Amino acid sequence: MRLSRYFLPILKETPKEAEIVSHRLMLRAGMIRQQAAGIYSFLPLGLKVLDKVSNIIREEQNRSGAIEILMPTIQSADLWRESGRYDAYGKEMLRIEDRHERELLYGPTNEEMVTDIFRSYVRSYKDLPLNLYHIQWKFRDEVRPRFGVMRSREFLMKDAYSFDLDFDRAQTAYHRMFVAYLRTFARCGLKAIPMRADTGPIGGNLSHEFIILASTGESEVFCHRDYLAMNEPGEDVDFANADQLAGIVKDWTTPYAATDEMHDEAVWNAVPEEERVSARGIEVGHIFYFGTKYSEAMGAVVAGPDGNNVPVHMGSYGIGPSRLIAAAIEASHDENGIIWPKALAPFDVGLINMKPGDADCDAACERLYAEMQAKGIDVLYDDQDTRAGAKFASMDLIGLPTQVIVGPRGAKVGEVEIKDRASGARDTISIDQVVARISA
Amino acid sequence: MRLSRYFLPILKETPKEAEIVSHRLMLRAGMIRQQAAGIYSFLPLGLKVLDKVSNIIREEQNRSGAIEILMPTIQSADLWRESGRYDAYGKEMLRIEDRHERELLYGPTNEEMVTDIFRSYVRSYKDLPLNLYHIQWKFRDEVRPRFGVMRSREFLMKDAYSFDLDFDRAQTAYHRMFVAYLRTFARCGLKAIPMRADTGPIGGNLSHEFIILASTGESEVFCHRDYLAMNEPGEDVDFANADQLAGIVKDWTTPYAATDEMHDEAVWNAVPEEERVSARGIEVGHIFYFGTKYSEAMGAVVAGPDGNNVPVHMGSYGIGPSRLIAAAIEASHDENGIIWPKALAPFDVGLINMKPGDADCDAACERLYAEMQAKGIDVLYDDQDTRAGAKFASMDLIGLPTQVIVGPRGAKVGEVEIKDRASGARDTISIDQVVARISA
Repeated sequence: MRLSRYFLPILKETPKEAEIVSHRLMLRAGMIRQQAAGIYSFLPLGLKVLDKVSNIIREEQNRSGAIEILMPTIQSADLWRESGRYDAYGKEMLRIEDRHERELLYGPTNEEMVTDIFRSYVRSYKDLPLNLYHIQWKFRDEVRPRFGVMRSREFLMKDAYSFDLDFDRAQTAYHRMFVAYLRTFARCGLKAIPMRADTGPIGGNLSHEFIILASTGESEVFCHRDYLAMNEPGEDVDFANADQLAGIVKDWTTPYAATDEMHDEAVWNAVPEEERVSARGIEVGHIFYFGTKYSEAMGAVVAGPDGNNVPVHMGSYGIGPSRLIAAAIEASHDENGIIWPKALAPFDVGLINMKPGDADCDAACERLYAEMQAKGIDVLYDDQDTRAGAKFASMDLIGLPTQVIVGPRGAKVGEVEIKDRASGARDTISIDQVVARISA
Repeated sequence: MRLSRYFLPILKETPKEAEIVSHRLMLRAGMIRQQAAGIYSFLPLGLKVLDKVSNIIREEQNRSGAIEILMPTIQSADLWRESGRYDAYGKEMLRIEDRHERELLYGPTNEEMVTDIFRSYVRSYKDLPLNLYHIQWKFRDEVRPRFGVMRSREFLMKDAYSFDLDFDRAQTAYHRMFVAYLRTFARCGLKAIPMRADTGPIGGNLSHEFIILASTGESEVFCHRDYLAMNEPGEDVDFANADQLAGIVKDWTTPYAATDEMHDEAVWNAVPEEERVSARGIEVGHIFYFGTKYSEAMGAVVAGPDGNNVPVHMGSYGIGPSRLIAAAIEASHDENGIIWPKALAPFDVGLINMKPGDADCDAACERLYAEMQAKGIDVLYDDQDTRAGAKFASMDLIGLPTQVIVGPRGAKVGEVEIKDRASGARDTISIDQVVARISA
């Protein structure tokens, strides 16, 4: 993409309303724009990252056997009356009346609707296990929305719902999502640590939050140092193998890890002091087994092997892609801007023409631009006639992993500078070597 | 995808509420489910088609130079007060009040919001032309929603908005979208004919609807037979070449074509009788130049070459992907079900195992399933233990372009049947030839 034909509205000023670094950087880098309190547009650069996150989530959901659907944003109040949550949900639910005075709402989550879909079609245990997910906009009318897309009112969520015949099978479904989440965050370039979460009145041990460590995180977390060195499961995980899944979950839940809420000082003190990591974290995913809570209330039953109807055991599994972007920036930035993990970067490479109009610079840039595109390298080419200093600052701000800098003296002798955004390391190399170096 | 692990809830009964064939077939084929009046979930098969349509639209928008963003579904009423449309829009607008009693609405369209984005960032004519589009859910509170996703209340729309310095450049932007639309519908396997539409108080000749001919279409249309044989512009269109674009538009607007609304009997009668095509049609796209209507009201100005601020000339360009699916089915089906154009088909091939459990059938199917996947052919494998008759009926209903039918006698001697859904032609071929035949 040529910058002259793109829409990348970089802000020079730091917006005053932004309290946290990811919000500031996303506004300054032209990724998002606030349209109303807690409601944002994704501008081109922000949307590219949102799509990358969503696609990684989608691929890992599919790999685990979950099936994608798409439920609407607007729901009927009647459905929520069946579960009892219409009255219970409180003011965070955006309630709507249509022209016929029918009560609707903007879905804050989809347990009721997906249970309704399930009960409409599925009759037999033979059609289980089933896990349906969608990636759709939700609305929660936070009393004081802030922190940009980290805590917006309209936000994108991937929510999956599993349906199983009994607790044991539901537990395997839970493990499947647990492992899919480990892979998802790892592929996003993020270290996420599963931490036991409060299960409320349902009890049991089947609720985990996935927490990214970031010095600017919203809450205090405590974990064993072992987590930092653990490797996430590879592509060869067998999602049909319940024992293998249970083993992975066991490995990832044995060392101590807890949010402030669930922290147990006694157990923590038993961890050797040098192994303790006390840090700040950001929740990026939450998985939850809730048994027959909705299936009983809403009559979602299947005939079991003995022919008798039983309510299905369910779980729900959420990741917020819009929130995840902010979390990734909180975890990876410096004083000059964002430092994207490769998998989330909106472009792979930023190509800077330091002197548009200079014949050598233009020729070198055009050649590199064409060669990179031919290799499938997604490149943002700054071909604009602006000061070199401003170009460097913008490119650091938007945080593409690699910069290729073409100046008149280098171009004349066939050389360019290549800069790694994360380390800041710069190297002068021959133009001939650029594509091979980036592809390596 | 193995059918045993998929979620494809085929309905045996024809749903009574469905008045038109596309609605009936989408319900029966398990593509959609109504969640409330005019509000639908897309089930897995329906979502796959929706994604295919959206991706074709996206690729052609990008090719034409439009840039993708994503605006939120919920908008502030204040923005619509600036254009005067908050009061003017009437009951089709879903009006919402949040917990702080601020007036919001579910966007029925985005002229105001995109104009707000533009005026926030763009200052100079040097940043033009600009065309921003998004693919996002909209809501229009139709008094009597019906016809399934053909006329739903919550619907997906691609809406693009062009910004130019003056009328001439805006006209080129309009031509660019006109040509992109011709390519988009052609790639979807649909013959769409541009027909002049009413421009209302703005006047001029720059509003066209794109109409698909279908015997079950919603309105009467009249066009010259020449359209049926015209070839849509190829991949080599140069969207930077204003003259080339104008030439294509001229070719596609010269023969007579009009909807009932714009029909001119006198001009029609001048068309030789044997060249007249009078048919029924479905609108699948609408493009519109509206000049400075919003830019003047909302202060979206740029400094021109002389340094003076001028309001920008705008156009808007819409395609409804959810509606387009229904239109495609109206245009292509038979008494047994849907007949997908190849580009929109949810899977390329349906592989039918007539006798699961039979060693030859199972081995042949597994081999074909693996070979097709390795070649990137997206295959739905009916591995379920149900009657062969029901399998054939379901496969015809969901309308995949090619069926591969594996029965015990054929499998024993290394042969399968291959069936073309559109023509019904069947052929017995060697298992070794199947993948080559499908890839051809």
